[in-house]
Amino acid sequence: MQLTEYLKEKKQLINQQLELYVRDYSVPGRLQDSILHSVHAGGKRLRPILLLATAQAFEVQEEKVLGVASALEMVHTYSLIHDDLPAMDNDDLRRGKPTNHKRFDEATAILAGDALLTLSMQVIAEDPHLSDSERIYLIQELSKASGAKGMVEGQMQDMLSENVEVSLEKLENIHKNKTGQLLKFSILTGAYLGGVTDKVLTEMIKMAEALGLIFQIQDDILDITGDASVIGKPTGSDEGNHKSTYPQLLGLEGAIDQKEKYVQRALENLKNANIEGSTLSQLIQYLSIRDH
Amino acid sequence: MQLTEYLKEKKQLINQQLELYVRDYSVPGRLQDSILHSVHAGGKRLRPILLLATAQAFEVQEEKVLGVASALEMVHTYSLIHDDLPAMDNDDLRRGKPTNHKRFDEATAILAGDALLTLSMQVIAEDPHLSDSERIYLIQELSKASGAKGMVEGQMQDMLSENVEVSLEKLENIHKNKTGQLLKFSILTGAYLGGVTDKVLTEMIKMAEALGLIFQIQDDILDITGDASVIGKPTGSDEGNHKSTYPQLLGLEGAIDQKEKYVQRALENLKNANIEGSTLSQLIQYLSIRDH
Repeated sequence: MQLTEYLKEKKQLINQQLELYVRDYSVPGRLQDSILHSVHAGGKRLRPILLLATAQAFEVQEEKVLGVASALEMVHTYSLIHDDLPAMDNDDLRRGKPTNHKRFDEATAILAGDALLTLSMQVIAEDPHLSDSERIYLIQELSKASGAKGMVEGQMQDMLSENVEVSLEKLENIHKNKTGQLLKFSILTGAYLGGVTDKVLTEMIKMAEALGLIFQIQDDILDITGDASVIGKPTGSDEGNHKSTYPQLLGLEGAIDQKEKYVQRALENLKNANIEGSTLSQLIQYLSIRDH
Repeated sequence: MQLTEYLKEKKQLINQQLELYVRDYSVPGRLQDSILHSVHAGGKRLRPILLLATAQAFEVQEEKVLGVASALEMVHTYSLIHDDLPAMDNDDLRRGKPTNHKRFDEATAILAGDALLTLSMQVIAEDPHLSDSERIYLIQELSKASGAKGMVEGQMQDMLSENVEVSLEKLENIHKNKTGQLLKFSILTGAYLGGVTDKVLTEMIKMAEALGLIFQIQDDILDITGDASVIGKPTGSDEGNHKSTYPQLLGLEGAIDQKEKYVQRALENLKNANIEGSTLSQLIQYLSIRDH
């Protein structure tokens, strides 16, 4: 299957699942409407797709990972709703649509985020395709990745770094927490449920770390060179917000070189894990050149 | 032991546990400071104490429930931080201290709440005193109680009911979700870990439902007759916010009668569960006459 076909098919699958879960775990009304607004706002569903692709590479049945892939996207969606709030990044548009608090109001957006985070844990805890020990392992890892030593701490550090000159080391640390940990969770989950050896797991974790940085560097590059109508939000916002970025610290060419270095590393990790022929290797290259 | 002694001792125990967990599951810095601010702001720790008392009544070892009791208080604390935000109830004081967003800022308060909710799930998922199936059951119940069919939906409905005349039925429904579900979780957890029969479990759930309503009626009464310096927040805020309350719908005397009816029911449930001599029966009466 072509990668574009693959991406389209899996995105639809995840969208269906998300809609089913939200309708099942909430009651009709304003809160549900607001959750569905953000869930329908779409996005590429990269995290769940990476999870599905990793699971496939290690021969895990798709139905076994659909629940946790949806839970992961719920955590990502909740974090976007809260990050867009006026008190945080104050964004009016997300993927070309009004952000949750613009379409509804701030209180509703805060609650929609809270509900999605709670729901993500419930989805894993009730997943009939997973054993109790698998559910527990995944909840442990997801809460670590998204909590006060992971994503939430990354967002805090990101906010504290606005209008402040930060080193490349500090910048990478922020991204590792803010973006990298959830990406790592997607890869880790596929490998864990595939019952891989410790050696393979180590390679996959390294791959996931490289992938997180590829993702972020390309994000920074797109903020400079991208087309706002393709990305679905205004470009140039990093400079406007005085955020440190890779192009700013390394120059645009330097950032591109750095990204290419991580791509080579990630592909090497896949080779060491004996899955260099999998869809994951196409995904790595796609992520490094994506235009939105 | 006298009830006041019991309350003091258990409150200290919970406070210690909360502090340990927060320090262990986050890194030093602004986010941790902000979480600790709200954790230290205190409160009566009623939910975890109800959990401990129920566990004791059914002869469950205290160390087995300390983790989940702390997780429960984290969920309660996160909900207070978010409810206090300007976009929600816009409160400057909580238990006589500045609310999280007043002491820090709105972005930090949102993140502190998010972190506490995430942490609560991690604490249960990693609790070495619980089996995998116990952890899963408790995460299922806690996420249901606090999610989009529980606490978060209750808060949404509560906000939608401001400046609107609501019926007693609707009011009870709001409280059942907003306050009642977490109280019910505390009772349910103690009984579940005590391995009670279905008949006893049913009595305890009924007791918990009555307790939730006792708690809320007394809250409404205190907003009229209470002493602001004892409660730690201004009184009269319900009327100021145009919120429907029991005294408003039933009159002050009517509300007191209604509360007394629920107290008798709850004590009856304890008797049917064969634990009428437990600390829980003192707690029910204490909750119905508390002054803060």
